[in-house]
Amino acid sequence: MKQEIKPATGKLGILVVGLGGAVSTTMITGTLAARKGLAKPIGSISQMATMKMEDGQEKLIKDIVPLTDLNNVVFGGWDIFPDNVFDAAVYADVLKAKDLLAVKDELEVIKPMTAAFDHNWAKRLNGTHVKPIENRWDMMEALRKDIRDFKVANNCERVAVLWAASTEIYIPMSDEHMSLDALEAAMKSDNKDVISPSMCYAYAAIAEGAPFIMGAPNLCVDIPAMWEFSKKMDVPIAGKDFKSGQTLMKTVLAPMFKTRMLGVSGWFSTNILGNRDGEVLDDPDNFKTKEVSKLSVIDNIFEPEKYPDLYGDVYHKVRINYYPPRKDNKEAWDNIDIFGWMGYPMEIKVNFLCRDSILAAPIALDLVLFCDLALRAHMSGIQTWLSFFCKSPMHEFNQEPVHDLFIQWRMVKETLRNMIGEKSPSYLD
Amino acid sequence: MKQEIKPATGKLGILVVGLGGAVSTTMITGTLAARKGLAKPIGSISQMATMKMEDGQEKLIKDIVPLTDLNNVVFGGWDIFPDNVFDAAVYADVLKAKDLLAVKDELEVIKPMTAAFDHNWAKRLNGTHVKPIENRWDMMEALRKDIRDFKVANNCERVAVLWAASTEIYIPMSDEHMSLDALEAAMKSDNKDVISPSMCYAYAAIAEGAPFIMGAPNLCVDIPAMWEFSKKMDVPIAGKDFKSGQTLMKTVLAPMFKTRMLGVSGWFSTNILGNRDGEVLDDPDNFKTKEVSKLSVIDNIFEPEKYPDLYGDVYHKVRINYYPPRKDNKEAWDNIDIFGWMGYPMEIKVNFLCRDSILAAPIALDLVLFCDLALRAHMSGIQTWLSFFCKSPMHEFNQEPVHDLFIQWRMVKETLRNMIGEKSPSYLD
Amino acid sequence: MKQEIKPATGKLGILVVGLGGAVSTTMITGTLAARKGLAKPIGSISQMATMKMEDGQEKLIKDIVPLTDLNNVVFGGWDIFPDNVFDAAVYADVLKAKDLLAVKDELEVIKPMTAAFDHNWAKRLNGTHVKPIENRWDMMEALRKDIRDFKVANNCERVAVLWAASTEIYIPMSDEHMSLDALEAAMKSDNKDVISPSMCYAYAAIAEGAPFIMGAPNLCVDIPAMWEFSKKMDVPIAGKDFKSGQTLMKTVLAPMFKTRMLGVSGWFSTNILGNRDGEVLDDPDNFKTKEVSKLSVIDNIFEPEKYPDLYGDVYHKVRINYYPPRKDNKEAWDNIDIFGWMGYPMEIKVNFLCRDSILAAPIALDLVLFCDLALRAHMSGIQTWLSFFCKSPMHEFNQEPVHDLFIQWRMVKETLRNMIGEKSPSYLD
Amino acid sequence: MKQEIKPATGKLGILVVGLGGAVSTTMITGTLAARKGLAKPIGSISQMATMKMEDGQEKLIKDIVPLTDLNNVVFGGWDIFPDNVFDAAVYADVLKAKDLLAVKDELEVIKPMTAAFDHNWAKRLNGTHVKPIENRWDMMEALRKDIRDFKVANNCERVAVLWAASTEIYIPMSDEHMSLDALEAAMKSDNKDVISPSMCYAYAAIAEGAPFIMGAPNLCVDIPAMWEFSKKMDVPIAGKDFKSGQTLMKTVLAPMFKTRMLGVSGWFSTNILGNRDGEVLDDPDNFKTKEVSKLSVIDNIFEPEKYPDLYGDVYHKVRINYYPPRKDNKEAWDNIDIFGWMGYPMEIKVNFLCRDSILAAPIALDLVLFCDLALRAHMSGIQTWLSFFCKSPMHEFNQEPVHDLFIQWRMVKETLRNMIGEKSPSYLD
Repeated sequence: MKQEIKPATGKLGILVVGLGGAVSTTMITGTLAARKGLAKPIGSISQMATMKMEDGQEKLIKDIVPLTDLNNVVFGGWDIFPDNVFDAAVYADVLKAKDLLAVKDELEVIKPMTAAFDHNWAKRLNGTHVKPIENRWDMMEALRKDIRDFKVANNCERVAVLWAASTEIYIPMSDEHMSLDALEAAMKSDNKDVISPSMCYAYAAIAEGAPFIMGAPNLCVDIPAMWEFSKKMDVPIAGKDFKSGQTLMKTVLAPMFKTRMLGVSGWFSTNILGNRDGEVLDDPDNFKTKEVSKLSVIDNIFEPEKYPDLYGDVYHKVRINYYPPRKDNKEAWDNIDIFGWMGYPMEIKVNFLCRDSILAAPIALDLVLFCDLALRAHMSGIQTWLSFFCKSPMHEFNQEPVHDLFIQWRMVKETLRNMIGEKSPSYLD
Repeated sequence: MKQEIKPATGKLGILVVGLGGAVSTTMITGTLAARKGLAKPIGSISQMATMKMEDGQEKLIKDIVPLTDLNNVVFGGWDIFPDNVFDAAVYADVLKAKDLLAVKDELEVIKPMTAAFDHNWAKRLNGTHVKPIENRWDMMEALRKDIRDFKVANNCERVAVLWAASTEIYIPMSDEHMSLDALEAAMKSDNKDVISPSMCYAYAAIAEGAPFIMGAPNLCVDIPAMWEFSKKMDVPIAGKDFKSGQTLMKTVLAPMFKTRMLGVSGWFSTNILGNRDGEVLDDPDNFKTKEVSKLSVIDNIFEPEKYPDLYGDVYHKVRINYYPPRKDNKEAWDNIDIFGWMGYPMEIKVNFLCRDSILAAPIALDLVLFCDLALRAHMSGIQTWLSFFCKSPMHEFNQEPVHDLFIQWRMVKETLRNMIGEKSPSYLD
Repeated sequence: MKQEIKPATGKLGILVVGLGGAVSTTMITGTLAARKGLAKPIGSISQMATMKMEDGQEKLIKDIVPLTDLNNVVFGGWDIFPDNVFDAAVYADVLKAKDLLAVKDELEVIKPMTAAFDHNWAKRLNGTHVKPIENRWDMMEALRKDIRDFKVANNCERVAVLWAASTEIYIPMSDEHMSLDALEAAMKSDNKDVISPSMCYAYAAIAEGAPFIMGAPNLCVDIPAMWEFSKKMDVPIAGKDFKSGQTLMKTVLAPMFKTRMLGVSGWFSTNILGNRDGEVLDDPDNFKTKEVSKLSVIDNIFEPEKYPDLYGDVYHKVRINYYPPRKDNKEAWDNIDIFGWMGYPMEIKVNFLCRDSILAAPIALDLVLFCDLALRAHMSGIQTWLSFFCKSPMHEFNQEPVHDLFIQWRMVKETLRNMIGEKSPSYLD
Repeated sequence: MKQEIKPATGKLGILVVGLGGAVSTTMITGTLAARKGLAKPIGSISQMATMKMEDGQEKLIKDIVPLTDLNNVVFGGWDIFPDNVFDAAVYADVLKAKDLLAVKDELEVIKPMTAAFDHNWAKRLNGTHVKPIENRWDMMEALRKDIRDFKVANNCERVAVLWAASTEIYIPMSDEHMSLDALEAAMKSDNKDVISPSMCYAYAAIAEGAPFIMGAPNLCVDIPAMWEFSKKMDVPIAGKDFKSGQTLMKTVLAPMFKTRMLGVSGWFSTNILGNRDGEVLDDPDNFKTKEVSKLSVIDNIFEPEKYPDLYGDVYHKVRINYYPPRKDNKEAWDNIDIFGWMGYPMEIKVNFLCRDSILAAPIALDLVLFCDLALRAHMSGIQTWLSFFCKSPMHEFNQEPVHDLFIQWRMVKETLRNMIGEKSPSYLD
C-alpha cells in the first residue's frame, strides 16, 4: 500500500505569480527568516504540525514524509511591477522594518520576470512590467521559456508555480474549457474572452511538469481541460482560493451549529481591507468571482436538503469593502442569526482583526511543499486532500467538495499515512 | 460485538433537581410542546440528528438505537421554591406567553417535592420549600423515598435524576471522597464540610438504580467513591456542567487554532447574565467552582507541552458578571489574542448573545435519554462518550478528558454504532 | 421679543404618507397607548423633556410652550397598500401582540386613502392601493382634495403632513426646482423626471396651509421652489431624513473626537435591516439618495479645512444591506479608525442593535407637534431649529447645516425660549 | 473683567510622580518630538484646539492666552525604579523604536529622583528607588527639598507637579482631612492610615507654590484640607483621574441618551489591560478607588431623580481585568441596554481598542500648562473649568460636578474668554 516517493533531492524552485504582492513577499521573508532561525514558521502545517503514528508516537509531519527542506528552496516569479522583493515588501507594509532588514540582502536579489497580463481581467491594476504579448498561446510559450530558464539559472531539480496574484473577473465555465483539445484550440485562436492570463500560467506550468497552485478564486485550473492535462502530464494541481480568515472561521462555526443541531436563519459577512487585493475586488466583476467562492461554503456544510427545518432558509450575504485605512490588516465582521430549542433566536457576532498575508503566507508555502511531495509520489490531477487550505476546493463533477475544516484535516492525515503505509492509531486521530 | 439492550418499554420518570429553574422549565415546556407537534426540539441530538450507517444510508439516531419516546416521559423533581412548573416558568421569563399557555395545564400539575438544601452551599439562595433535615444520611434516605414514591405514583418503569440546580461552593477532593466506604462513613457521621447536598441526591439516585446527571460543575458525582458506587449498582452517571455557550465556542475555536498551527497568547472571556444562576455565581465561592470548570478546557486542547512555541504562554481569564438587565439572555464576549506567521499578532472578538436555557434544555434532555439508553445497555459508571455535552467531562484518574467538540461527536457516534454492531462507513464519518 | 402664538385649540390632523409603514404604525400605536396611560412616550422630546427657565426652575417643554395635546390628535394618511393600521402594524412586526391588541379598535378604524405613486421612483415596491393618476399636477390636486376632505370629515382645525414612506431614487437639483414658477410649470407639463411623487404631497400640504415634514432623504421639499412656496404660504417645513440610529451616534462621536482633537483616518459604517425600507434601499438608485444623506454629516462636523492634520483625509464609507432575518431590528456596525498623540492609531467599533421604528416614531411625532407649534407662531419656511431630529438638516444656500447633536439641542432650547421671551439661565443651559 | 495674567517668561519645570511610567514617558517623548517638528501633539487642546473670538475669527487657544511654550519646558520627577526616561519608555513598550530613538539623547538625561513610597498603598508594586523615609512629615519635607533643588538646578522660574503614578488603595474621607490644621497634625503624628504618600507630594507642591495635578483617582488633594491650603498659598490644584477612554465615551453617550430622552436599564463596562497600571488595579483595594471614580459619572449625568421613568433603575457595573497580552493597549467593551418608544429595549456595544498612554499623554500635558496659566492668573484652589480632562472632577461640598463632555468644553472656553475679557460670539460657540 505504501507509495513510491522520490526523495526530495536537489533544489526546488518556487515561482510565484504576483511575486511582489503582500502574500508572496510575506511568505518569502518568513521562509528566509525561518531558515536563519530568526522566526518561527507559525501557521505552517508542513513545518510545525505533528501526527500520531500507528505505534502512538507523535512526530512532526516533515519527519514522516520526505518534504523539501526550506534550505533547498529558491524563490522567483513574475510581477506587473518591476520592484525587487525587498522594495515590494516595504510597499506592501505588512512586516515591520526590523523583520525585513534582517533578510534584506536575500530579498533584494529576487527580482520579478515580466508578467503575462491583460488589463481587461483586472481593471483596477495598471502594471508596467508586462510582456508585450497579447496572443494567449504566445503568452503561454513565453512563460514556459521563463520556467525553463529559471530552472537552469538556479540549478533547480524541480519547480512549482504558485498563483498569489489578483482575483480575475468572473467568467462561467464554457465549452472551450471542457477538454484539453478545446482549450488548446481556444488558446491558439486567441479567444481572449474565455482564456484568462492565469490559464496561460497554469498551462505553462503543467506543460513543464510543474505543479500549479491557484491561491485566488479564478476559474483558471478548475476546468475539465486542466484536470485532463494535469493527469496526462502526471502533475498535481491544487486550489482554489486560500482559506485564510473569515471563511476559515465559517468552516468551523458551521459544523458546530450542525453538530449541535442548532438552526441558522441568516449569516451576514462583511470585510474591510485596504491592500491591492481590496482595490481589485472593488470592481464588481472581480468581486463576483470572490463572492461565488465565499458563498458556496455554508450550503455544502449545512445540507439543507437533509435538515430543512434547520437550514432550509439561510440568508447568506457576503460583502467586501475597499477601505484604505486598514491596509493589509483585513477585518471581518460576521453576524450569525441562529435559533435553538423551540425556535428561539440567538445571535453571534464575530469580529476578526486579522492580517491577510500573515494568514495566507504559510498556506501558500504548505501548498507548494505538499504539491511537490505529491509530484514525487506520482499523485496527479486535483489534490483533494489539500482542500484543507482552500476556500473553494476543486473537485471533479462527480464529487462533492468537503468544506468542514476538521474533516479536511483528517483527509490530510489519512493521505499522508497512506503515502507511507501507516494506519491511524485510532478512529479519533 | 452488538450489545444486549433492553427495549424502552414503559414510562421513564425524569426527576429534576431544581425543577422550577430556567433550564428545567424550558426543557419540560419544549418537550411537551414537541410531543404535541407545537415546536421542534431544535438542538436535541437524540431527536433530530442523523448518522450514516455502514451501508451509506443516513438515519435518525432515534431510529437507530432504542431511545425512550418523548410520549413515554413523565416529569417531576425537587425545588426550594414551591411553585408549580407553569408559575416557575413565568417567573423565569425565558419563554413567551404563547408558548407557555399552549401547555399550561400540563405544566401546572407538575409540582416540586421539598428539596434537600443547605444554605451554606449556596448563600445567595433562600428557599422555603425545604426538607427539615440537616443530617446528610437522613437527607439521602428521604430522597430515596421520594424517588420510590414518585415511581409508584407515576407508574414508571425507570427513573433518571438530573441536577439542573445551582452551582455549589467550591470544595477540593478529599479523603472522604476516595472510596465508597469513606463516603458512606462521612455521610453517616454527617460531615457537612465534605458532603454537599448534591451528593445526597446522587447517592440516592444510584442507590435506587437511577442514572444521575450533573448539569452544574459541582464536585458531587465526580469522585472515586461515586464512580465505584455507580459501577457496583450497574448505573450510568454523566456530567459535569452543560456545555452550552461560551465553552461550546471555545471547544471549536481552540481546535481551529491548533489544527492550523496558529499561536495563542491570551483568551479573555467575560459573561453577563441576570438570572438566578448569575446571582448564585456572584458569590466568589460558587464562582470558583465554575471558574475551575471553564478554565480547564483550553489547556487540554492546546497541549502546551507539545507546542510550547504556540501555546506555552496562554493567559486565560474567565469572568462571570451578574447583570440583571440581561435576565436569562446570557451574553458572552471573548477576546482572543492569536499570532501567526513570524509571530505577528491578530485578534478575534466573539460576542455571543445567547439564551442560557434555550441552549441547555436540549442538552439536559439528551443526557437523560442517552443515560437511560446506557442503563438498559448495562453501561455503568462514567459515560465518557457523553463528554460531547459537558464543559468538564468526568474521567477516571488514568484518563484524559476530551474537549474538542468534533472528537467528542465521533465518540458519540462510535459508541452508538458499537451498541448495535455497526461500523463507520468511512474514516470521515 | 416674545412671539405671538395661537393657542392649540381644536383638533390637529396628522396625515402620514406611508400610513401602513413600520414607523407610522409604531408612532400611532404608541401615541394611542400613551394617551390611555398604557405606555410612556419614551424618546419624545415634546412629551418628556424638560428645560431650565430663567429663574432656575425646570419645567416640561410641553408646559412651557402651547403644544397640541396628544388627546387632540387625529391620525390619517395614504398608503399604497389598503390595510388598516392594525393589520399593517401586525405585518410590520415591530410591536408585540399585547401592545397592539390594547388599542386594536382604534387602530382598525384608521384606513389609508389611496396613494399618489410612481413605480419608477421606488422600483422594489408594488402597491395596489394607488390613485389612477399619472399627471403630476392632477396628482397634487387630488391630494389637496384628500387633505380638505379629511379635515372636514374629522373636524380638524389644523392639519400637518408627514412623509414616513420610502426613500425615492436619487435626483440632483435642477433648474425646475429653482423657483416656484419653474416648479409649477414642471408639474403642469408633467415632467416626471424632476417631479417626484413626494413633491406632489409637499406642494399639496403647503397649498393647504399644512406644515410638511420629510422623514426620508428625498429631495422633495429641500429645493428653493418649496422654500419660496412655504414662506409665501406662511407654512413651516422640516426635514430631512429622521436621525435615528447610526447617524445619531455619528453626530455625537464625531464632536467628541473633535473636541478632544483626536484625528480620524477612516469611518466604515455598515447596516443590516430586513424591513420594507431595507428592501427599497437594496436598489442602488434609492440607496444613492440615502448615501448622500448619510455621508455629509462627518465632514461638516470635522471641518477638515480648519484641521487638515486631523481630518484632512477621512475615508468615509456607508453601506446598507438588505438582510431579511433582522426585520425591523436594524443593526449598525461602525468601525472608526482614529489617531492620537504622535499619530498612534486606535480603533472604536460600535455595534448598535436598534429598532428602526422605535427610534423613529417619537422623532416623527415631535416634528409634527413642533411644526404645528411653529405654524401657530408664524414661523414659515425651513425650521432649522428642528435640525436636531434630522440626518440632513435642510438649509438655504447661504447657510451651513449644523450636525452636532448638542449644538442642535441648544438651538431647540433657544428657539423655544425666544418664543416665550425667556432667557437661558446660564451659558451652560 | 479681564484678568491680570503674568506672562509665561522663563522655564517651567514639569515634575512628574511616576516619571518612568507609561503615561509620563509617552508625554515627554511626544513633547520633545513635537518641539523638534517630528510629531504633531495630537489630542492636545493647548497645542491644537481653536476658539472663536467675539469678532467671529477663529484662533488657536495658545495664541489667545499666554501659555508656556513647549520650548520652555523642562522635565523631571520621581520614580520607584531608577531607570532614565529612555530606558523606562522602552520597558513601557508604548512607542515604536523609531519614535524613541529620535529623541534618545534628551530622554536619557532625564533621571528620576528617589520616590516617596509606602508599599501598603500599592501592594503589587515593589520599587527599589525609594527614599528611606517612612514618617509622613519627613517625606513631605524631603519632597519640598527635591522641588527646590530641581528648580535651581534647572533654572526654572516656575514648577508644576503632576501625579501620573499608580492608583492608591481606597480610603474614605476622615476627620484628619477636614482642615489644614487637622491634616498637618496627622502628617506630623505620622498617621499612615489616613495620609497617603500622594498627599505628601501634593502638600509639598502647594507649599512650594507649585500647582498640583492628580491624574489618578486617589483621594489625595480632593479633601477640604488641601482645598484650604491651595487657596491659602494661591496655588491651583486640578484633578482627579484622567478622562481618557471608556469614561470619555460615557460622558458623551450618556448625554446623547438623555438629550434624546432614551431610557437606560443597564451599563456594563469591562476593561482589559496589561500594563503596570493594570497590575496595580488587580488588587481589590486599589480597584475600589478606581471603581468609585468610574461609577459616579453616569448618575450625575442622568439625574434619575428628575427622570425616574428613564434612569431610575440603571444597573451600572465596571470591571477592570489585568490581562498581560494587551500591554498598554487597553481595550474596553461596553454593553449598554437602552429602551425607547413604549419601553422597547435596544442594545449598544462599544469596543474601544485604545492606547492608554496615547490618550492620557496630551491630557497630562494640557492640565499642566493650563494650571500654570491659572497660577499666573491667580486662580487658586480647585480648577473646576478643567473638569473637561477628569473622570472625577473635584468640587467643593456645595457644588455638583459636571461630567457632560460638551458642557465641560463650554466651561473651558468660557473661562479662557473671561481671562482675556472676551465674550462668546454666540450662544452656540
